[in-house]
Amino acid sequence: MSKAETTVTSPVRLAAEEQADQPPLTPELEELYRGFEKALLVPLWTSIGDLMPGQPRSQATAHRWRWSELLELADRSGDLVPVGRGGERRAIALANPGLGGRPCATPTLWAAIQYLMPGDDAPEHRHTQNAFRFVVEGEGVWTVVEQDPVPMRRGDFLPQPGMHWHAHHNAAAKPMAWIDGLDIPFQYQVEGQFFDFGRDKLYEEERATPQRSRSERLWAYPGLVPVSQFQPKQGTPLLRYRWEDTDAALTAQLELEREGYTGTVEPGHALVRYTNPVSSGDVLPTIRAQFHRITAGTETAPRRETGSSVYQVFDGSGRVTVGASSWSVSRGDLFVVPSWVPVSVRSEASSSDSDSGALDLFQFSDAPVLAKLNLFRSRTEES
Amino acid sequence: MSKAETTVTSPVRLAAEEQADQPPLTPELEELYRGFEKALLVPLWTSIGDLMPGQPRSQATAHRWRWSELLELADRSGDLVPVGRGGERRAIALANPGLGGRPCATPTLWAAIQYLMPGDDAPEHRHTQNAFRFVVEGEGVWTVVEQDPVPMRRGDFLPQPGMHWHAHHNAAAKPMAWIDGLDIPFQYQVEGQFFDFGRDKLYEEERATPQRSRSERLWAYPGLVPVSQFQPKQGTPLLRYRWEDTDAALTAQLELEREGYTGTVEPGHALVRYTNPVSSGDVLPTIRAQFHRITAGTETAPRRETGSSVYQVFDGSGRVTVGASSWSVSRGDLFVVPSWVPVSVRSEASSSDSDSGALDLFQFSDAPVLAKLNLFRSRTEES
Amino acid sequence: MSKAETTVTSPVRLAAEEQADQPPLTPELEELYRGFEKALLVPLWTSIGDLMPGQPRSQATAHRWRWSELLELADRSGDLVPVGRGGERRAIALANPGLGGRPCATPTLWAAIQYLMPGDDAPEHRHTQNAFRFVVEGEGVWTVVEQDPVPMRRGDFLPQPGMHWHAHHNAAAKPMAWIDGLDIPFQYQVEGQFFDFGRDKLYEEERATPQRSRSERLWAYPGLVPVSQFQPKQGTPLLRYRWEDTDAALTAQLELEREGYTGTVEPGHALVRYTNPVSSGDVLPTIRAQFHRITAGTETAPRRETGSSVYQVFDGSGRVTVGASSWSVSRGDLFVVPSWVPVSVRSEASSSDSDSGALDLFQFSDAPVLAKLNLFRSRTEES
Amino acid sequence: MSKAETTVTSPVRLAAEEQADQPPLTPELEELYRGFEKALLVPLWTSIGDLMPGQPRSQATAHRWRWSELLELADRSGDLVPVGRGGERRAIALANPGLGGRPCATPTLWAAIQYLMPGDDAPEHRHTQNAFRFVVEGEGVWTVVEQDPVPMRRGDFLPQPGMHWHAHHNAAAKPMAWIDGLDIPFQYQVEGQFFDFGRDKLYEEERATPQRSRSERLWAYPGLVPVSQFQPKQGTPLLRYRWEDTDAALTAQLELEREGYTGTVEPGHALVRYTNPVSSGDVLPTIRAQFHRITAGTETAPRRETGSSVYQVFDGSGRVTVGASSWSVSRGDLFVVPSWVPVSVRSEASSSDSDSGALDLFQFSDAPVLAKLNLFRSRTEES
Repeated sequence: MSKAETTVTSPVRLAAEEQADQPPLTPELEELYRGFEKALLVPLWTSIGDLMPGQPRSQATAHRWRWSELLELADRSGDLVPVGRGGERRAIALANPGLGGRPCATPTLWAAIQYLMPGDDAPEHRHTQNAFRFVVEGEGVWTVVEQDPVPMRRGDFLPQPGMHWHAHHNAAAKPMAWIDGLDIPFQYQVEGQFFDFGRDKLYEEERATPQRSRSERLWAYPGLVPVSQFQPKQGTPLLRYRWEDTDAALTAQLELEREGYTGTVEPGHALVRYTNPVSSGDVLPTIRAQFHRITAGTETAPRRETGSSVYQVFDGSGRVTVGASSWSVSRGDLFVVPSWVPVSVRSEASSSDSDSGALDLFQFSDAPVLAKLNLFRSRTEES
Repeated sequence: MSKAETTVTSPVRLAAEEQADQPPLTPELEELYRGFEKALLVPLWTSIGDLMPGQPRSQATAHRWRWSELLELADRSGDLVPVGRGGERRAIALANPGLGGRPCATPTLWAAIQYLMPGDDAPEHRHTQNAFRFVVEGEGVWTVVEQDPVPMRRGDFLPQPGMHWHAHHNAAAKPMAWIDGLDIPFQYQVEGQFFDFGRDKLYEEERATPQRSRSERLWAYPGLVPVSQFQPKQGTPLLRYRWEDTDAALTAQLELEREGYTGTVEPGHALVRYTNPVSSGDVLPTIRAQFHRITAGTETAPRRETGSSVYQVFDGSGRVTVGASSWSVSRGDLFVVPSWVPVSVRSEASSSDSDSGALDLFQFSDAPVLAKLNLFRSRTEES
Repeated sequence: MSKAETTVTSPVRLAAEEQADQPPLTPELEELYRGFEKALLVPLWTSIGDLMPGQPRSQATAHRWRWSELLELADRSGDLVPVGRGGERRAIALANPGLGGRPCATPTLWAAIQYLMPGDDAPEHRHTQNAFRFVVEGEGVWTVVEQDPVPMRRGDFLPQPGMHWHAHHNAAAKPMAWIDGLDIPFQYQVEGQFFDFGRDKLYEEERATPQRSRSERLWAYPGLVPVSQFQPKQGTPLLRYRWEDTDAALTAQLELEREGYTGTVEPGHALVRYTNPVSSGDVLPTIRAQFHRITAGTETAPRRETGSSVYQVFDGSGRVTVGASSWSVSRGDLFVVPSWVPVSVRSEASSSDSDSGALDLFQFSDAPVLAKLNLFRSRTEES
Repeated sequence: MSKAETTVTSPVRLAAEEQADQPPLTPELEELYRGFEKALLVPLWTSIGDLMPGQPRSQATAHRWRWSELLELADRSGDLVPVGRGGERRAIALANPGLGGRPCATPTLWAAIQYLMPGDDAPEHRHTQNAFRFVVEGEGVWTVVEQDPVPMRRGDFLPQPGMHWHAHHNAAAKPMAWIDGLDIPFQYQVEGQFFDFGRDKLYEEERATPQRSRSERLWAYPGLVPVSQFQPKQGTPLLRYRWEDTDAALTAQLELEREGYTGTVEPGHALVRYTNPVSSGDVLPTIRAQFHRITAGTETAPRRETGSSVYQVFDGSGRVTVGASSWSVSRGDLFVVPSWVPVSVRSEASSSDSDSGALDLFQFSDAPVLAKLNLFRSRTEES
C-alpha cells in the first residue's frame, strides 16, 4: 500500500470572543482553539448563530435585472462570442449580488439569457442538471431533445429533464433570445453532476422545423396518455407547454372568479403549475414552474416560502416588493425572491401594455427539493 | 411606495483568457465583460468547466480524524467551556480541509463530537435540521426527546427527526462523549432552517433514567406497529436502535454466508440499514445510516456513490483507501468519503481488538437527498 | 345481555366421491362430512379445483350485444318507464349469460344503456360506486356533477368518481342514449357501498347548457393544473374528456408510426388511456378506461389480461375473437372479455363506415383493482 | 374464420311488480321485460335496492365457531383423510351460513383449520392467493417457504405472500392444528388466480428443524434491513412474527397506559398491526392482520368498518357482540364480523384463564383491499 498519509494545512481560523454566551476568554481557551484549528475542528458554540438561525436568513439578495440591459449585452455577445464545443452555449447567467460573484441567481438556481444568431448551432450534450427554456419573445429556434425538434415561441415553456441529449439551432433570419433555468447551483452543492458531450453536428432530419414536436404529438392532450410510452419518470415526457394552453387556463380561472366560482388563488390572481403527466408531480425533479396572471389594479398578499424563486415578467407592468426592496417591472424583467422573504406584486397597467392590462409572470423555484425533503413551508400574510 | 430601488456593488469579476474554447481576446470582449460585471452577469462559457464537470469533482477532501485527538480536545473543552443557552451544546465539528475552514465534514453533512460532564444539562431546543447520535463508547447520558428520556449506550444509534424538542443530561459520575450527525450544511444551502429555544430546565420526570425509552416500548418490535400511533411520517418514531439488535443482524448475515446463503453484500461484508418503521424509507428525510461488519482479512471492493459519507470505526482495526488517500484506522476514528471517490476498507485484526477480529463501521450519508431527486448513482469496481 | 345465541340451518352440502385425489369412500367419511355440514365447514380437498384453478377460469362468458337491439328496447322503455326517485335512472344493464341472470356485464363491472327523453330529469344522488358515461351517438344531455353542468356529445368520456352528487337532464328535443359503466358488482362483493339521495329538483342555474363544464375550464389543459384546486385524489377532477382530444391523440400515434417513430402499441393499433391529472393513475380508483383505433385491415395480436373488460364499438366495423367466440361488430355494439381469455380484433372496413375505415373501440376494465393488489398479469401472443 | 356465433339460453328472469317506484304494470311492460330477458338485459329500476344499498348490507352472517368442535372434526379427518397431491392440504374451511354453503368465512376471506399428523408432509405448491398461518396451540410443524424451514409455535403469525413456493411437514410425535387465512374468495371474484404444483418431496435440508428461519435471521430486527435483500415488495419478506414480540408489544402498551401515556387505542385495549418491513404497509397485499389485548373487565366501544374480519381467541374468555348476535368465547373460538356491522368485545376472566385475565384476540381482515381502492370507512360508537 504505497498511498501516503499526507498532512494538510488547516484552513480553520477561530477567534475567541468576550460575549455572554461564549466561554470565558482565557489563555487556556485560546490554546484550545489553536488545538481545534490544528485538528481541523470548529466548535458549535462559535458558529451556531450563523448555521442555525431562528428562520431562514438567505445568503442571496432580492434583485431585479432589466430585460433591456440583458438583451443589449446578449446582442453584443452575438457579435463577439461564437457558439461551439467547449463553451457549449451563448448563455449569460444572473449573478446574485449576495452570492460573491458566482453565476447563481439564487443559492440553488441558475437563470440565464441564451442567444442564438441566425444559422447558429449549439452543439449536442447532456447532463444530470435539470433544465428548461422559457420564451418571452421571438421565435425561429428549435431545441432538439433526443433527436426530436421542438419549436420555441413566445410564451412556450420547454422543460428538459436531466440526461436528455439536446442541441439548439436557429432556423430564422433573426437572432433569438430566451431564458434558461437550471439547478446548476444545487447540483454543485450536492455533487451529483455528470456531463457528456454529444455529436457536433445534428442529422439533417433533426434540423427539420415542424410546428409541433413528436413529444407534443404523443403527450399534449388533457388527461390522455399514449399507452406505448406510459411509464413513471421523475422528469416530464412533454417537452413543450404551449402558450395557447397556458393563456387559456389563466383566462378561464379569472372568468370563473367573475362568475362567482373558485379558480384563482386569491382575488384577481390566477395561477397554474406545469406538471409531469406521468407522475402529476412537478415538471422536473428539482424545479417547480408556475405562471401567474394578476389583473390590473390587483396587489397580491405578501407570501413567504422556504426556498428561492426567479420570476420573469411575460407581459404587463407593475411594482414588485420583496422584503425591503421594491422595483417597477415590465416585459422581460427578471427578479429573484430569496428564501422566506415575503413577495408581493402590484399590477399597474401602462399605456404600452396589452389590452387586458394584466401582469403576466413566469416563476420557477426549487420547491420540489424542499417539499420532498420535508422542508417546505409557506405563509401568506394579510395584505 | 417608499422602498427605494437601491444600487449594489457588483461582486462579479471576469477575466477574458486566451484559450481554444474561449472567444477571441479583443478590447471589445473586455468591454463586454465589464458590462457583464456591472450588470451582475456571468457567462457560461467562462464557468462551465467548474460548474458542470464530466463527473462529480468534490469540493471536499478525503480525510481521517483520530478519535484520541478528538477526545483529548473534547475533554479539555469539558474543563473550559460550560454548556448552556446560546452555545447550546458542547459539540465540536469536523471541518473538512477542502471546505475553507467551515464546520462541515462534507458539503452536506455535519459531524461532531459532543461531550457532557457529570451533571451537565444541554438545554432544550428544536430545529428543522435532522440529527442523530451514535455512541462509540460510554454510557450515562439520556437524550430527552419530546419529553421521553432515551438511554444512550455503546453501539446505540439514536435518530431525532427535525422539529422534535430535545435536551440531554448526564446522569453518570463520568463524562460521556459521542458523535452527532446532522444535515446542517445541506439546510444551510437550501435555506429552509427554523430553530426554536425550549425550556431551560427539564421537568423532574424527564430526568428519569429508564432502561428503555417510551419510543422503544412502542416501536422496537420487528414488523409490529402500535395502531394508536401509526401514521406516515418522514422521520422515524423509533428513537433508539439498540446495539444488541444491530450486532445480531450483522452476526446472522455472516453466519448465513458461511452456511451458503445470501445475506452479505459481498463476501465477508455484512451491511444493515437503519429504516423508519412507518415508511420503510431512510431513518431521516435527508440522512441514510448504515452499519458495516467486515471480517478479518477481507478487503471490500472499491465503491463510488454520488453524495458524501462520514464513517466512524466502532470496533477493530484496518486500512481505509479513499481515492488517492489511505489511512490506518482503529476504534473511534472518523473519516469522510467525498462524492464519487471510491472507498475500500481492509480489515486488519490487531492484538488489541475484540475476539472476532472484524472491523465494525458506522456510516452516514446524504443518499436520501440524491435518491429522492433522481441524482443517486453508484458503481462497484472490481477489487 | 339479552341477545340470544341463535342456531342456523346449515346450507353446507358435501358429497364424498370416489376419485384418485379424494379420501377413501367409507361410512366414516360420510359421517365426517355430515359433521362438517352441521358445523358449517367445507374441506379444501373437495373444493380446491374450483377455488384455486391453475389459471383464471372466468365465471363470465364472452358475449356481444347488438347496439340496435339495445337501442330498440331502450326506446321502448322511454315510452313505458318514467324516470324518477326510487328507480333513479332509466338504465338497462348487460347481464352476462354466465352470471346467472344478474345485472353484471362481468364479475366486477356494470355496463348499461341509459336513455333520457326530451325534458327528462334523472334525480340527484351520490354513491361510493365509481361511474362514467361514454357517448356513442347523440347530444343534448347535460350531466350535472356537484352542481357543474357537463355537456355530453358523441365520443366524450365522462368519469364521475364515487360520492360526487350527480343528476342528468335532457335539454334537447330528441331522446338521447349513452352507456354507463360502474363498479357495482365489485363493490357488491367487497361490501363497501354507500348511497345517498339528493335533491329532487336542480337549481335553475344547474340547468344551464354551457359548451364546457367548469371542470374542463379548470383542468382540460395538457400538463397544467390550477394551483387553487390541486390536491391528490383517487378520482379525477376532470369530468369530461372530449372526443376532439381523443381523436387527435389517436391520429397522431398512427401518423408517427407512418413516419417511422414509436407511438402505437403494435402496427396499426393506436391506444390511449384516460388518466387522472392529479395522480397520473387511472381515471377512477377501480376502473381503467382506454380507447383503441385499429387501421383497416389490421388484426391485433391476441392478448390476455387478468380481470375483465367491456368494449363498445365507436366507429367502423370488424370481427372480434374472444377465446372460442367470434362475432362481427359495428357501431355501438358491446362485447365483454372475461379474465385471461385472449381477445383479438380485426378491422374490416365496410362501405357504410367513415372515411378512414379504421375501427374505433372504447374499452373499460377493472385493471386498477388487480394492479393495486398485485394481481395484474398480461400476455400478448404471436398473432 | 370458422368460429361460430353461438346462441345462449338467457338466465335472466324479470318480474314486473306493482310498487310506487316501479313503472305501471301493463301488458306492454311485461312484453318489454320479456325482450330484456331475451336480450340478456336487466333494468336498474328493478335491482337498485339490492345492488346499491344506503349502507353495506352484508351477504354474510355474524357467526361463531367453537374451537373444540373444529378440533374434534380435524382430528377425525387426521384418521380418515390422507394429505397428498390433488387435495393438497388437510384444511377445513369455515362456511359462513349466509353464503350458501361455499367455503367462505366472509365474502372475501377464507379461514380454515389445518391439521398435520406426525410425519405428514403437505406437498409443495404456489399460488397467487395470499396466505398466512396463525398458531393458537401446539408446535412441531415447519412450513417450508422458498426452501426456508420456518418453525410454527403457539402465538406465531406466519404470512406467506402470493406465488411463494411452500410445503409443510410435521416433525413432531403429535398432530398439530392451526388456522390458515387466505384471500381465496376475493381472488375468486376478481379472477386473477394462478396455481402451480411444486415438488412432491422436499430436499433433506429443507426438512431441517431450526429454531429460527433464515427469513427471521435476515429481517426480524426492529427497523434494521439487510441491504443485500432490500427492495420494495407488496408482500412481506419476514415469514414469522414470533409470539414473544407480539406479547411484549401488547404488554408495553398497557403499561404505558397505566403510566399515563398514550399507547392503547382505547382504555384497556392494546392493539398491534403486523406490517411489511419493506413497505410499512400491510403484511399482505389483500389482508390486514392485527392482535388485540383487552384487559379483564374492559368492554370495547362498538366499531364498524367496511369490509369483513375473522377473529380467533388466542387466550382468555369473554363475550362478543356483533350486531344482533352475541356469544361467549374462549380459547381457539373463531368468529366473523361482516361489513359495517358493529363489533364489541367484553373481557370476562374465568377461573381457567391465564394469570393476566386479559382477552387476547387475533384478527385478520380485507381492509387493504378497501383502503387501496378508496372504499375504507370506519366509525367507533359511544359504548
